[in-house]
Amino acid sequence: MADLALAGYGEEEHERIVSTLFDWLRIPSISADPQHASDVRGSAEFCARLLREAGLENVAVLETGGGPAVYADWLHAGRGAPTVLVYGHHDVQPVDPLDEWRSPPFDPVIVDGECLARGAIDDKGQTLYQIEAARGLLARAGRLPVNLKLLVEGEEEVGSPNFEALLRAEMSRFACDIVVVSDTGMIAPDVPSTTVGMRGLVAFDVALRSASIDLHSGMWGGAVPNAARVAADLVTALHDDAGRVTLPGFYDAVRPLSPAEKASLDSHPFNEAEFLASAGGVPYLEGEAGYTTLERIGVRPTAEVVGLHAGYAGPGIKTIVPATGGFKVAFRLVPEQVPSEVDASFRAWLAERVPPGISVAITPEGGGVAPALTPVDHPAVGALVRTIEAVWGKVPLFTREGGSGPEEALGRVLGAPVLFLGVGLPDDRIHAPNERMVMDQFWKGLVAAGQLLVALGEG
Amino acid sequence: MADLALAGYGEEEHERIVSTLFDWLRIPSISADPQHASDVRGSAEFCARLLREAGLENVAVLETGGGPAVYADWLHAGRGAPTVLVYGHHDVQPVDPLDEWRSPPFDPVIVDGECLARGAIDDKGQTLYQIEAARGLLARAGRLPVNLKLLVEGEEEVGSPNFEALLRAEMSRFACDIVVVSDTGMIAPDVPSTTVGMRGLVAFDVALRSASIDLHSGMWGGAVPNAARVAADLVTALHDDAGRVTLPGFYDAVRPLSPAEKASLDSHPFNEAEFLASAGGVPYLEGEAGYTTLERIGVRPTAEVVGLHAGYAGPGIKTIVPATGGFKVAFRLVPEQVPSEVDASFRAWLAERVPPGISVAITPEGGGVAPALTPVDHPAVGALVRTIEAVWGKVPLFTREGGSGPEEALGRVLGAPVLFLGVGLPDDRIHAPNERMVMDQFWKGLVAAGQLLVALGEG
Repeated sequence: MADLALAGYGEEEHERIVSTLFDWLRIPSISADPQHASDVRGSAEFCARLLREAGLENVAVLETGGGPAVYADWLHAGRGAPTVLVYGHHDVQPVDPLDEWRSPPFDPVIVDGECLARGAIDDKGQTLYQIEAARGLLARAGRLPVNLKLLVEGEEEVGSPNFEALLRAEMSRFACDIVVVSDTGMIAPDVPSTTVGMRGLVAFDVALRSASIDLHSGMWGGAVPNAARVAADLVTALHDDAGRVTLPGFYDAVRPLSPAEKASLDSHPFNEAEFLASAGGVPYLEGEAGYTTLERIGVRPTAEVVGLHAGYAGPGIKTIVPATGGFKVAFRLVPEQVPSEVDASFRAWLAERVPPGISVAITPEGGGVAPALTPVDHPAVGALVRTIEAVWGKVPLFTREGGSGPEEALGRVLGAPVLFLGVGLPDDRIHAPNERMVMDQFWKGLVAAGQLLVALGEG
Repeated sequence: MADLALAGYGEEEHERIVSTLFDWLRIPSISADPQHASDVRGSAEFCARLLREAGLENVAVLETGGGPAVYADWLHAGRGAPTVLVYGHHDVQPVDPLDEWRSPPFDPVIVDGECLARGAIDDKGQTLYQIEAARGLLARAGRLPVNLKLLVEGEEEVGSPNFEALLRAEMSRFACDIVVVSDTGMIAPDVPSTTVGMRGLVAFDVALRSASIDLHSGMWGGAVPNAARVAADLVTALHDDAGRVTLPGFYDAVRPLSPAEKASLDSHPFNEAEFLASAGGVPYLEGEAGYTTLERIGVRPTAEVVGLHAGYAGPGIKTIVPATGGFKVAFRLVPEQVPSEVDASFRAWLAERVPPGISVAITPEGGGVAPALTPVDHPAVGALVRTIEAVWGKVPLFTREGGSGPEEALGRVLGAPVLFLGVGLPDDRIHAPNERMVMDQFWKGLVAAGQLLVALGEG
């Protein structure tokens, strides 16, 4: 790595960068919880300060109606140099269940080369190495090899409800030739990979009511509807015995993998025991019949119940027939599924299955994100491949990522190809207790982020 | 009612009795919530004071390991007079959802002749009129027509986990010829009834874990087990398409109704529209195929899911595959079902249905209560029938009540027939927001409680 533009920079600035990382991670910028709105704002202001200190210009905290985003740029690379917009986010997931954390989620520590904290990898760490890469290049060369724009969102973890509107409102500010998303991962440190596709997301909260009040189970139980059972029946009915989603027409628009895509996916290393262990020790795999695990998590659409609740959840027993219940479901979409069509299909599915007289309230959550694919023959993808090979020592595999985010809107609204440089690992426990970032990946990410700008500047 | 022993007593003591009722109802003696343990104790001490002021003797707060019970007696009726033990309870249900109460649950008010408060009818009101009946008889006659024992439990609402042990430990103190339970209801003020059977109760909390941590739904969703779905599938599987409980052998011990019992039950007035309205406006009836609604709520065994939870329940969406979930289920039992057999059957049912590798923790809740029947040819039942007829103006119907309680243990351990004098009404919203007691029923209950002692003293 000695010939890389930022070789040695991480070592030289080690103490300051770790201290900065910790300070940022101490801000509980949980976008899902209105009680943390001021923390999300504090995190945005912290980020703005980092961008200014890095030597970037036009730093601005951008109001969105939700968590604020942060913008900065450096636009002096000269005629002919491409403009690159780097995307990250500074908001984080909730931390419950709190008692499963080995150390407090907002009191970061580094243990055995891993930084433990909410937001460590998702996405403050991955945003920080981008900021530090710009800072390092400016410090060493006095300039950047490209025109750089940094956009750090503040409501990615709640589904970016205002992000597309922000992009549209600020389209000239964000105009660019290439987008680099810094919020993904790779298969393993010795199996580097980059994402060339991202599933979309449509999510809903469904609230059910079967009576005006909870009823005494001894007086009414056995004769009246039970909201817990109505909710459970709906959750159970979401999939058939073959693990297929039962929404009408759900798979109609799904484009099959090409033989080349299928061959590439099948060539990925996959060790079931390692996969089970890294997936929080799950005891077995399951899913849509006829597909491999890598297909199920990357290229197939899914319906995942992320929450289910009805009746009494306190200690002991309460002898009621619950009057209210509900569930939250997230659908992952793949090309060419369309969020609005899935929305309509889900409503039709509910209308068909909720018994008459049970009231149902459907709340779309997260705004709806269409699935995205990166054109793999774009020269910028070549620059990314060379960068990853230079830093990790191996040509990266191409993957499709199961996750969703604002990436699709970035590419579509800004009309630019989207690259994914991400150093996360499958067992980083994002969205779960004990989220971590492997520090060696962070330092490599810093070097790679700088080198990618160099490679993109070379065209 | 002019020739009844306590005619006019309620009017004379109106202000004091209502004030006493309100003071007791202001104590939030929620036995399910450990944070209210001191309130349960405070309620016991309040009750003990009432018993002393009534002129009863040997007043004692009895420790149980859970919420304390209260005891008092008056044993000077002389040779040949029967000993009657009156049972009530002073603990109450939780109050959530709090925002559905029209007035604060522990700030009692009387509106349109109804007392609104948690515990109004279940069971402080029904206990208070028993205490006041004894007080009134002692005040008016200087003596009682029977030897009287009052036992007021403090953990009925959590399934009386220590009650049978208390009965056994204090068997000589509680020895009696007749038990009177003051914790039930009647069909309507103009359709008085008394309970001659009570379903039993076996309840469980089931906790499931499918992974050590919640997983990101984009990275793992579609390939790994989801604890919400496991919980939902179990809840759905509890009943078959005919509404029958699927536990192995669940119905084997159920004794069919005799033709006379069936004819009596079928003769009860039943108006479906009124029933739906009084059941919190439920939109339709359902239940075990082949049985009427009155059979389903009174004489058939049931399985009711009282709580169901998994994953994220906060605002918005959280894109996880939940690692934990669970449910709480209450089985109502009828003669001759045996709690321990249902316990074993439920465990076998779970073992068969929970996928291997999903961890499951089963916690019995409430201790297990066997179903109970009162012998309707006992002379004491005749005394109760005469009393109800004298106060409400009609011969009562015999019902079997769906609820459960410590009544079975009382009858079995003390070897005495159990009478049910209860003034609750089907739409009293017990265990729900806006619990109420119809004050006219309370005043009638006071007169009836006194008259029943007179009738039992006459043999």
